[in-house]
Amino acid sequence: MRAITIPKPGGPEVLTWTEVPDPVPGPGEVLVEVVASAVNRADLLQRQGRYTPPPGASPYPGLECAGLVDGDPVCALLAGGGYAQQVAVPADHLLPVPAGVALEEAAGLPEVACTVWSNVVHIGRLAAGETLLVHGGSSGIGTFAIQLGKALGARVITTARKVKHEALLALGADHVIDYSTEDFSAIAQDLGGADVILDFVGASYLDRNIAALARNGRLAIIGTQGGRHTEFDLAKVMAKQASISATLLRPRSVAEKAEIIDGVRATVWPLIEQGRIRPVIDRRFPMPEAAAAHRVVEESTHVGKVLLVN
Amino acid sequence: MRAITIPKPGGPEVLTWTEVPDPVPGPGEVLVEVVASAVNRADLLQRQGRYTPPPGASPYPGLECAGLVDGDPVCALLAGGGYAQQVAVPADHLLPVPAGVALEEAAGLPEVACTVWSNVVHIGRLAAGETLLVHGGSSGIGTFAIQLGKALGARVITTARKVKHEALLALGADHVIDYSTEDFSAIAQDLGGADVILDFVGASYLDRNIAALARNGRLAIIGTQGGRHTEFDLAKVMAKQASISATLLRPRSVAEKAEIIDGVRATVWPLIEQGRIRPVIDRRFPMPEAAAAHRVVEESTHVGKVLLVN
Repeated sequence: MRAITIPKPGGPEVLTWTEVPDPVPGPGEVLVEVVASAVNRADLLQRQGRYTPPPGASPYPGLECAGLVDGDPVCALLAGGGYAQQVAVPADHLLPVPAGVALEEAAGLPEVACTVWSNVVHIGRLAAGETLLVHGGSSGIGTFAIQLGKALGARVITTARKVKHEALLALGADHVIDYSTEDFSAIAQDLGGADVILDFVGASYLDRNIAALARNGRLAIIGTQGGRHTEFDLAKVMAKQASISATLLRPRSVAEKAEIIDGVRATVWPLIEQGRIRPVIDRRFPMPEAAAAHRVVEESTHVGKVLLVN
Repeated sequence: MRAITIPKPGGPEVLTWTEVPDPVPGPGEVLVEVVASAVNRADLLQRQGRYTPPPGASPYPGLECAGLVDGDPVCALLAGGGYAQQVAVPADHLLPVPAGVALEEAAGLPEVACTVWSNVVHIGRLAAGETLLVHGGSSGIGTFAIQLGKALGARVITTARKVKHEALLALGADHVIDYSTEDFSAIAQDLGGADVILDFVGASYLDRNIAALARNGRLAIIGTQGGRHTEFDLAKVMAKQASISATLLRPRSVAEKAEIIDGVRATVWPLIEQGRIRPVIDRRFPMPEAAAAHRVVEESTHVGKVLLVN
């Protein structure tokens, strides 16, 4: 088969569509004929040599896909290898293609659905009537989190550059904050504070995120784009009765991912099938043009997911 | 009535048993004729002027009591005022005296039961088969947490000075670590890591606590005796898929406390009535001798609760 490989770390230009050995499914795994994959920020880090695939994972990028297993449409959460014609995946990491969603578009659902569900619902326990603050609302994660928050009956505040505000309001966001000119923390506090915050920035936002929390708030950190080391004042967390989690989806065990998939299938998929959450696709590229897709995500001009299509 | 007052901040000697106005129950409150109260570490801080009672709370110390309401035995979680002959308390902060527990001894249950349940069960979600690390195992909180952990089917690791190890093993602790001579973090890691850690130390333990966590571990901080400010490496939390909460019981709202009381009544009280958790009473003092009781707790020579009896 062919796959996008990373012969050496570097810019988008290193991504190479080339012939590689066919994947061989291990015990409990099935082979997916990949119809489409999607770009995640972790793929950019992996391309730059800053994110080593976990042990046993495919060396090729691609954390999700849609395709066919024995002719049946599926989508899947992957530990890697989605930028390819075929990929082996544990059978319990498969999800059905939700009714009403095109097979190709389903490629952009597993990673965001699993990340958002596990952080906002499972860890963050967002409840109806609460307030969710989503950083980076225009990302794949962001566009999904906004919709899931609204579908669960929460008020949603999100951050994005001005040019993207209209799109995020159309997705249901109640308040959009331009983080480049406004103080998200002060605005969130003025709005009564956030019960759950979904954050990919990490260290440089930690203090402001804690300040933005409501009492009993839960800060769910899923990235450290703003660094990992920071000063920390426990008393500020304690004054809010707050909690902070920091998790990544990719290094989770096969069993943990299967549990998350089960939660997503039970809680999130019905909301998609009811039309309350829709996949937000910014654009699509042929798989061999993965470099162009990476450039789009790197420049952050997109809203939603960027797909790679075989 | 008479109560222990704090005419000025200072050592145990400032505590003064004196005549004060009778408390007047507000809406939704009842009057408890106090039979006994118990010493909590927060009382020591309050005596030193380092812990201002929350708005609306009694100015006298005492976060729990047992006594009579219209002749019926009860115990209660208090926002303050337990070191007295009478105290007003929201009716939904009352708990029954568990069958098999003497009224006086029930005075030492509400604070530890509510703190441990809310952190270990509600926030920490300790499950059977998991490992609980309890810092300060010989304290009232510690002796209760050890027993609750065992009753819930967890393995319990705890820290205490050597002289207290025998008592904590007798309470069911599986491993007792002498924090003054041993590295609790390394030992906990050798034992496979802690799924839940109950910590009152805060900043100075944060790094070692994170290192002691198992994957998916939950660190529940309930005190900052080791400081509030520290360096913090989010990536270490993320590598564990971990979460950190920092909470206090006393400043919670009346409604939040009532929810915690409900959880304790449903989950913890039956374990006490089955004899699987027993109140651990170190000694008792007449209420007017609160100063002597404070000295015992300050010197940390006790195991379990120190009661004040009318």
